[in-house]
Amino acid sequence: MPPTVKAVDLSSTTAAYHAAGTIVPAGKQLHISGQVGTLRDGTIPADYESQLHLAFLNLRKIILAAGASVRDIAKLNLLIVNYDPADRKHVRHIQRFLGGHRPAITLIPVQQLAVSSWLVEVDAVVAVPEQSLPTTLGQPKGSHTVDVVIVGAGLAGLTAAHEIIRAGLSCVILEARDRVGGKTWSMQLENGKGTIDLGAAWINDTNQSRVYGLAKQFGAELIEQNTEGNAVLQDFDGKCTPFAYGELPNFDPQTQAHLAKIRDMCEADCQALDVWKSRDSKLDSLTFEAYLRSRGASPAAPATATVWTRAMLGQDPRDISALFFLHYCKSGGGLLQMRSDRKGGGQHLRIRQGTQMFALGLADSLPEGVVELSTPVRQIVQSGSEAITIHTSRAGSGSGSGSGAIYAARKLITTIPTPALRAITFHPKLPLSKRAWIESTTYGYYTKAMLEFTAPFWVQRGYCGLAQSFTGPASVIRDTSSPHDGKHILTCFMSGDPGVAWAKLSKEGREEALLAQLEQLFDLSTDSDSDSGVDIRKFFVQLSTYEWSKDEWAGWGCPSTALTPGVLDAVGGEALREPWGDVHFAGTETAGE
Amino acid sequence: MPPTVKAVDLSSTTAAYHAAGTIVPAGKQLHISGQVGTLRDGTIPADYESQLHLAFLNLRKIILAAGASVRDIAKLNLLIVNYDPADRKHVRHIQRFLGGHRPAITLIPVQQLAVSSWLVEVDAVVAVPEQSLPTTLGQPKGSHTVDVVIVGAGLAGLTAAHEIIRAGLSCVILEARDRVGGKTWSMQLENGKGTIDLGAAWINDTNQSRVYGLAKQFGAELIEQNTEGNAVLQDFDGKCTPFAYGELPNFDPQTQAHLAKIRDMCEADCQALDVWKSRDSKLDSLTFEAYLRSRGASPAAPATATVWTRAMLGQDPRDISALFFLHYCKSGGGLLQMRSDRKGGGQHLRIRQGTQMFALGLADSLPEGVVELSTPVRQIVQSGSEAITIHTSRAGSGSGSGSGAIYAARKLITTIPTPALRAITFHPKLPLSKRAWIESTTYGYYTKAMLEFTAPFWVQRGYCGLAQSFTGPASVIRDTSSPHDGKHILTCFMSGDPGVAWAKLSKEGREEALLAQLEQLFDLSTDSDSDSGVDIRKFFVQLSTYEWSKDEWAGWGCPSTALTPGVLDAVGGEALREPWGDVHFAGTETAGE
Repeated sequence: MPPTVKAVDLSSTTAAYHAAGTIVPAGKQLHISGQVGTLRDGTIPADYESQLHLAFLNLRKIILAAGASVRDIAKLNLLIVNYDPADRKHVRHIQRFLGGHRPAITLIPVQQLAVSSWLVEVDAVVAVPEQSLPTTLGQPKGSHTVDVVIVGAGLAGLTAAHEIIRAGLSCVILEARDRVGGKTWSMQLENGKGTIDLGAAWINDTNQSRVYGLAKQFGAELIEQNTEGNAVLQDFDGKCTPFAYGELPNFDPQTQAHLAKIRDMCEADCQALDVWKSRDSKLDSLTFEAYLRSRGASPAAPATATVWTRAMLGQDPRDISALFFLHYCKSGGGLLQMRSDRKGGGQHLRIRQGTQMFALGLADSLPEGVVELSTPVRQIVQSGSEAITIHTSRAGSGSGSGSGAIYAARKLITTIPTPALRAITFHPKLPLSKRAWIESTTYGYYTKAMLEFTAPFWVQRGYCGLAQSFTGPASVIRDTSSPHDGKHILTCFMSGDPGVAWAKLSKEGREEALLAQLEQLFDLSTDSDSDSGVDIRKFFVQLSTYEWSKDEWAGWGCPSTALTPGVLDAVGGEALREPWGDVHFAGTETAGE
Repeated sequence: MPPTVKAVDLSSTTAAYHAAGTIVPAGKQLHISGQVGTLRDGTIPADYESQLHLAFLNLRKIILAAGASVRDIAKLNLLIVNYDPADRKHVRHIQRFLGGHRPAITLIPVQQLAVSSWLVEVDAVVAVPEQSLPTTLGQPKGSHTVDVVIVGAGLAGLTAAHEIIRAGLSCVILEARDRVGGKTWSMQLENGKGTIDLGAAWINDTNQSRVYGLAKQFGAELIEQNTEGNAVLQDFDGKCTPFAYGELPNFDPQTQAHLAKIRDMCEADCQALDVWKSRDSKLDSLTFEAYLRSRGASPAAPATATVWTRAMLGQDPRDISALFFLHYCKSGGGLLQMRSDRKGGGQHLRIRQGTQMFALGLADSLPEGVVELSTPVRQIVQSGSEAITIHTSRAGSGSGSGSGAIYAARKLITTIPTPALRAITFHPKLPLSKRAWIESTTYGYYTKAMLEFTAPFWVQRGYCGLAQSFTGPASVIRDTSSPHDGKHILTCFMSGDPGVAWAKLSKEGREEALLAQLEQLFDLSTDSDSDSGVDIRKFFVQLSTYEWSKDEWAGWGCPSTALTPGVLDAVGGEALREPWGDVHFAGTETAGE
């Protein structure tokens, strides 16, 4: 749908994240009462940033309930208590909430609000678009009829197709991309030195029995993650200190003890959750950062936690719900396990042929015609007794529906990332709780930058390749070499704010920034003539990367979506898993484990 | 007219007095500047609640001037100086202003406003409905033609009909109810013990010469109000103290002197008014409570004044204009006289047969066909040179016009309560001052609960039956017995907030609450074996009551409407009495005396 609200700008205002003015078209308008940072039961967190998240969520819920979206906001008024012009925390969260939309905004610092614990309140005027009607009702002529339509040919979609066919039913997988695999995407290096994984890379043989089963089925050669030697930490001052893999970094003993305590607390809270039913509203009212601070974390702890959340989600602790993050860790076996590169850990094993081999193998063993590539789904019409009608378009032809083939099915399973569902029009509209979840999921910034070298100089200097940095540009670095292929690679996880800043550099600037960071991390000295000096540039071959944040079919991000405070409380952890009539929701984000 | 503005709610917001959001339809919108609590000449009362009333009135005037109504408000913004989260005085007044309409609201506590004496400011966005067109213009075929149409068969309407016929003109009275009498409505007790008055009950023979004339004409048997023995006061702590009828309650001498001073001040200010021309804008800028406090009233004085206003109007002193209240008292001969049960007082005489006998007698003596019952007027069209056209509907058929008979007349007199005029559509619209008055009149909560007993135990214990209570549930109680009929009744005036709370109880709960209060007031003891103990439940026969607040044709309340501060200033005391072309306005509220 085209935007309803049009920005009005002067030459001096175009760079601002909000417009100087907006024009609302003739039509219905929504006026919203001041929304504050409360959960459904009235719980209000003491923390300002957590309240910001909840207030924006409450605003979003009303906007959705009225049949509009955040992109239809014409005017926002923001009332802030204890406003600090030197620390405008709200800007980050407004920008993330608006997702690039530019309404008119007025900020009003106030002494207090209606209730003394309220620190922020936001109201809005929103254009309400006309309800769009489905292109067709019922089963149109010339539609392909199957028992089940699956949306998305990632691992979940391909696996589902196999199960459906095994049950004697017919199905088709509609895949928007020209390839299968979703976020598993492996690319041959140009110099013939094997494969790199632009997306998901690691598996393990402990709590990932299904994917490990695929690995055995398709003859994957497994590469164990190198954890020999030292890891290294880059502190806020840029100083780099090695420490034994598996230990805590070499902070002073007091900090180390504190970090261990905080880590163990997170682990305990995480393990105490029920992954299938997460409704601890107190935990969900807080950002992960506010949660840590409310438990007495020192300034060093959030910095460490930032390394965790950036490496796992590309997010910062102040951007995500504490309950969501602990829940996410629990789904992967716990914080310690998800962060581990050893047996049972989240980064234990890589696939020499690349992880896309699973999807390619599953697709090859499906009957001819089941996988339809380059076929984005644009509209799903469900009218009760009749079959579901699915309208597609040719990939790249924009959001116009009706320009591609039409399918009819008794059931539909969507396996695509939640944000990608925003591009599909449902008739009738999805229930409010599902729309609230779909609209509230966020990606952080997350890109893997893979630097290929002619030799593993870090191993030669006693490092395992694992590095963590409080400064960036890379937050975390891991060795993703394949010694059999003579392939020596350090994969830099570019995420969060430092990742965003890095992504703005030129190709040469990006390379140079990472090489300079690696020099620091692995204590290479280029200006010295001593024998210990290593000129990293002599080893450097090439940088490979893929911007998932520019990938429409990934929902503009990777690796996994996260939730801001309050979303689990508002919609229930079950909202995405629940079917909507004959439409079922599956995939990474709906899995409990 | 269907509401223009549609509320948008989440499941957690439906109980609030405002909506989470509102949808304004496509069409015209009114944006209103911040309105503050000033009179027309700029006078601003020092009192916050008085300013609240005036600000809402000023808002209402602009809304009406734009052709919209309070029900069309989409968004309210409220700016409050010295906001106290623990004492949210504005909520009561907003709720009364909105009358059940639920716009979106944002409250903004501020340090100051544009002028330092301003304590509150309110602005709004309002949907402006399309002007509705009259169903017919000119005199439609098949209409009944008379010289004068009278709306309402209460005492005013019936008396007017007699006068019109005496002048040789033809007339018809259109009455929405299936009976005559309006707010005089007498019911036979089932046990044959005479009549009770569900509405107006008292008259006097001093300053009510016309109604006393009717009493003599129709052979009414008069019962003098019993003022022998003690009255009793229930204080805030529930403690009950008897005092001689006509004296002040037994407070300490200092309080007594203070109350006497305040009472005499009110009486003097009241007597100084010109009942036909009340435009003391200073007095009209204040609530009656603010007026008392501005004259140095101690906390006990407003409590006593609450007994007055609740017993007379079902209103609290903070809800009504000081000028209006003093004017209302003056119309009835003064505060002391209106409150008195003795010769010349407002509650001096009752009618054994019930007060409805006047209306029944007046109706019986009219020619056949003059009184049309069950004929609500829905639309009044006045087009200058042509006759007035009056559209009616069958009672209970809703507000759709054209479904009943049509009348044409040279003149029209409406005698119905002002709020009931809101249900009639006028073409063209009434002048702004009349609409402002009609929309601004309010009823408090007011119900008479009549408890019948087998014996007048209170008389036997030395009480006259008059009681006042600061706690409730009943605010005032009076003896309404008819000794000739062996009928022993205490009439409890259920009014204001305690009355509203009481009305929410079950039938049994209501009875029990009143019996318990009577036990306290008249010092009955049920748990004692001593001879002085009286078991009130042994005497209790039945409770009779009628909820005028649920009576559409009364305008949803009784006994009389009241005005908030500023209305008299804004529209002039004459606005309702002034004719509008050939349409005349009469009835209780337009009378000077």
